[in-house]
Amino acid sequence: MINERHKAALAEILGDQGVVRDPAGMAPYENGARYDRGRAALVLRPCDTAAISACVAYCVREGLSLVAQSGNTGLVSGSTPDGSGEQVVLSLDRMTPIFDLDVDNRSLHVDAGARLSDINARLEPHGLLFPVDLGADPRIGGMLATNTGGSRFLRYGDVRNNTLGVKVVLADEAGSVVDLLSGLRKNNTGVDWKQLFVGTSGAFGIVTECVLNLERLPRQVSTAYLVPRNGGAVMLLLRMMEERLGSYLSAFEGMSANAIGAALAHVPSLRNPFRNRDIPDYVILAEISRSWTPRDGEQRLDAVLEAALTEIWEADGMPLADAFVGPAHEMWALRHTLSEGVRHAGRLVAFDLSFRRADVLAFRDWMKLELPGHFAGVSIFDFGHVGDGGVHFNLVIDEARTGLVDDRLEQQLRDWVYSVAVERFGGSFSAEHGIGRKNQAYYDLYTQQKSKDLAAGLKRLTSPGRLGSVCFG
Amino acid sequence: MINERHKAALAEILGDQGVVRDPAGMAPYENGARYDRGRAALVLRPCDTAAISACVAYCVREGLSLVAQSGNTGLVSGSTPDGSGEQVVLSLDRMTPIFDLDVDNRSLHVDAGARLSDINARLEPHGLLFPVDLGADPRIGGMLATNTGGSRFLRYGDVRNNTLGVKVVLADEAGSVVDLLSGLRKNNTGVDWKQLFVGTSGAFGIVTECVLNLERLPRQVSTAYLVPRNGGAVMLLLRMMEERLGSYLSAFEGMSANAIGAALAHVPSLRNPFRNRDIPDYVILAEISRSWTPRDGEQRLDAVLEAALTEIWEADGMPLADAFVGPAHEMWALRHTLSEGVRHAGRLVAFDLSFRRADVLAFRDWMKLELPGHFAGVSIFDFGHVGDGGVHFNLVIDEARTGLVDDRLEQQLRDWVYSVAVERFGGSFSAEHGIGRKNQAYYDLYTQQKSKDLAAGLKRLTSPGRLGSVCFG
Repeated sequence: MINERHKAALAEILGDQGVVRDPAGMAPYENGARYDRGRAALVLRPCDTAAISACVAYCVREGLSLVAQSGNTGLVSGSTPDGSGEQVVLSLDRMTPIFDLDVDNRSLHVDAGARLSDINARLEPHGLLFPVDLGADPRIGGMLATNTGGSRFLRYGDVRNNTLGVKVVLADEAGSVVDLLSGLRKNNTGVDWKQLFVGTSGAFGIVTECVLNLERLPRQVSTAYLVPRNGGAVMLLLRMMEERLGSYLSAFEGMSANAIGAALAHVPSLRNPFRNRDIPDYVILAEISRSWTPRDGEQRLDAVLEAALTEIWEADGMPLADAFVGPAHEMWALRHTLSEGVRHAGRLVAFDLSFRRADVLAFRDWMKLELPGHFAGVSIFDFGHVGDGGVHFNLVIDEARTGLVDDRLEQQLRDWVYSVAVERFGGSFSAEHGIGRKNQAYYDLYTQQKSKDLAAGLKRLTSPGRLGSVCFG
Repeated sequence: MINERHKAALAEILGDQGVVRDPAGMAPYENGARYDRGRAALVLRPCDTAAISACVAYCVREGLSLVAQSGNTGLVSGSTPDGSGEQVVLSLDRMTPIFDLDVDNRSLHVDAGARLSDINARLEPHGLLFPVDLGADPRIGGMLATNTGGSRFLRYGDVRNNTLGVKVVLADEAGSVVDLLSGLRKNNTGVDWKQLFVGTSGAFGIVTECVLNLERLPRQVSTAYLVPRNGGAVMLLLRMMEERLGSYLSAFEGMSANAIGAALAHVPSLRNPFRNRDIPDYVILAEISRSWTPRDGEQRLDAVLEAALTEIWEADGMPLADAFVGPAHEMWALRHTLSEGVRHAGRLVAFDLSFRRADVLAFRDWMKLELPGHFAGVSIFDFGHVGDGGVHFNLVIDEARTGLVDDRLEQQLRDWVYSVAVERFGGSFSAEHGIGRKNQAYYDLYTQQKSKDLAAGLKRLTSPGRLGSVCFG
């Protein structure tokens, strides 16, 4: 149990500025981006790695439970305290001073508290960016703990692929600091420890600083909406786009008619690209981009995209029913509104799944056929990242039709969808949102025993203290 | 001590075909690609994961020491037995039946014994390749254990970036099999265990099968030799090439005059691109490539490269002293002969270093200045991967000048170069060759204590048996 002595000792370590104790001040750290309503015993706001180490060491020695919080934009209760009022939140929001750019190395050393949008705003004058882009605007420490993917994974990979180094504080009695900030791209001199802190919800250590890989800023972008002839044509279309546009291809996103309709209903100022007709069952947003502006004699990027689409249009197998090139900002505006739109379409049960790429559409077809027989009054509002196999599989419950919706129905729905995704299709129950408290039960259910045993051992080895919202055993 | 009972028991498990006991048959498994001359107690040649598991379990229970061997092309004594005659070699050379291609997912499930060249020959008709290319032709299991990088890291990354899944046998008493073959690109449901088996020289488990990410086969390739005005201009040149050619850029390799001269002397049929003049001090081989052939109205790739070089030529700062576009096969032929050429230039002491990118040239300049004062009669024959910071830093000892060269001088040279690379420049003592017995002492010397402690703990956790050539404690 945390007591006044503990609170005083932590205030002693961090100074008054570094500790939040009043309920109003703590509220933003207790409430998650969407779902969580927790209660914190105390919020710590250290400014550097040494202060984090001191806090962690104290909490471990006193047996206190710590949850690290970064931008608090996560969706799986990974960075908020539970309802006990006993957990200490360690916020990274004051961890921002370091911004050490190495232009030649295309790398950036930053504190874990740096905001994604701030990082990219400061990189823009150098013609560089951190290429993992998301709808949300998290801090980088949370992006590492979550291993976010985003919409341009197809071209740039996820956070893991773009992390060159980390500095970590372990939850042991010393608050051990492990410095892995070398910034090297090639380095095979033992275990690549940073991999253990990426995507593990902060349970094995708190990433306090990192070195990121940067990419050249795209100087030209062209986008098109593609309407596949049917679900089966989507993979052929993706293959043709990859062959004909190669490394230009930077996004290949799928959007269902339901999700598009919900976005248009939610934000009426959005231009409806299908104004005079039905929204097609499934629409692809394809993007190509390059880091340079056209030179003399070189085609504009829109023309490159149009030429490729014409070729695909005329190809055997005819994967396309329709296609039109249009302004990138307008096309992405619709894509980025899907998430909000779907939340306003009814009672939402959201899934962050992934599959081998062909199974994105196979799973969708299977669900369209089977869902009505299992759960009446539930509709599919899916969208996602077909190019990398990720699917935001959203189900909306029509409460008028199903009658009273209690948490039990929602739980049944959740269990059933995950069982189909994982057991029948070999997919993942958390593509890019991580585990957190929200997915703990599915980690327990779907992880092979040997992996669980190893994770429990690794937890004892790295951070035996009470750290993070996930229990790895 | 291994005895006849052990040998009989292992022959029982694998059958006569699966065990090599005679000295002549064992010799190829005892001798490394370049340096090693070890002695094996026995060579095991299992055909599938279950057989590997049975062998490993038996060896662990009986306390026997196992070294897994894949293509045996490594350079750090990672896959050969030591001189004791007590170690059992577990060869993966019969692990080849599985070849399960998923074209839609751009992924391939193969056995660890598959040869890189065989993989790419079988992928070619599908317009796909496994993009980690090397001078050697290893088997894929060894590529994972080593985490090889190669010449096109700049575009495609290393083996780690291109591994979607593994199946592993742990060296515990059960020979536990951990199946992580899902083939998903996005999957954040706990520890990404496959990362621990990549680049750790097979000490934590034997990768028996894997799922690889594939890329589209390049359909057009253009190359140029670039002569930077001086060492300081190389980074500016790289930056301009990245900005102007973006994702087309697939290699940016550095070659010293000494290395080029040695290659030309070793293979006189190679065309000398600098026939009528001195070879420049440092030459860049730049490659751009794309997965499609030019369409109507589109520039040929050579013209794209020439246009970019003209722009760079005319730019402020003038990084270029000379540049010429030429046939890719001819330019790469010279590049790929450097390694052999240097080996014939005298007594070679080879280093596989890496740095933050700007330090590749800074380290080179420092060494050119300081080496003669420390070690007379030693010359630098370096080449490497400037685009990713990797350097094959080769030193050739002129035995006529230095007199008798004993192993002690070589050892002093090695210690000194590593101390400069690691301590002064923050580089790596093994960029892409791994650890193995050859680099054990430098692992012990240059790894921070906490990392060593964690590695020792992880070893106990995963594979407490005697597995691999490296001692992680």
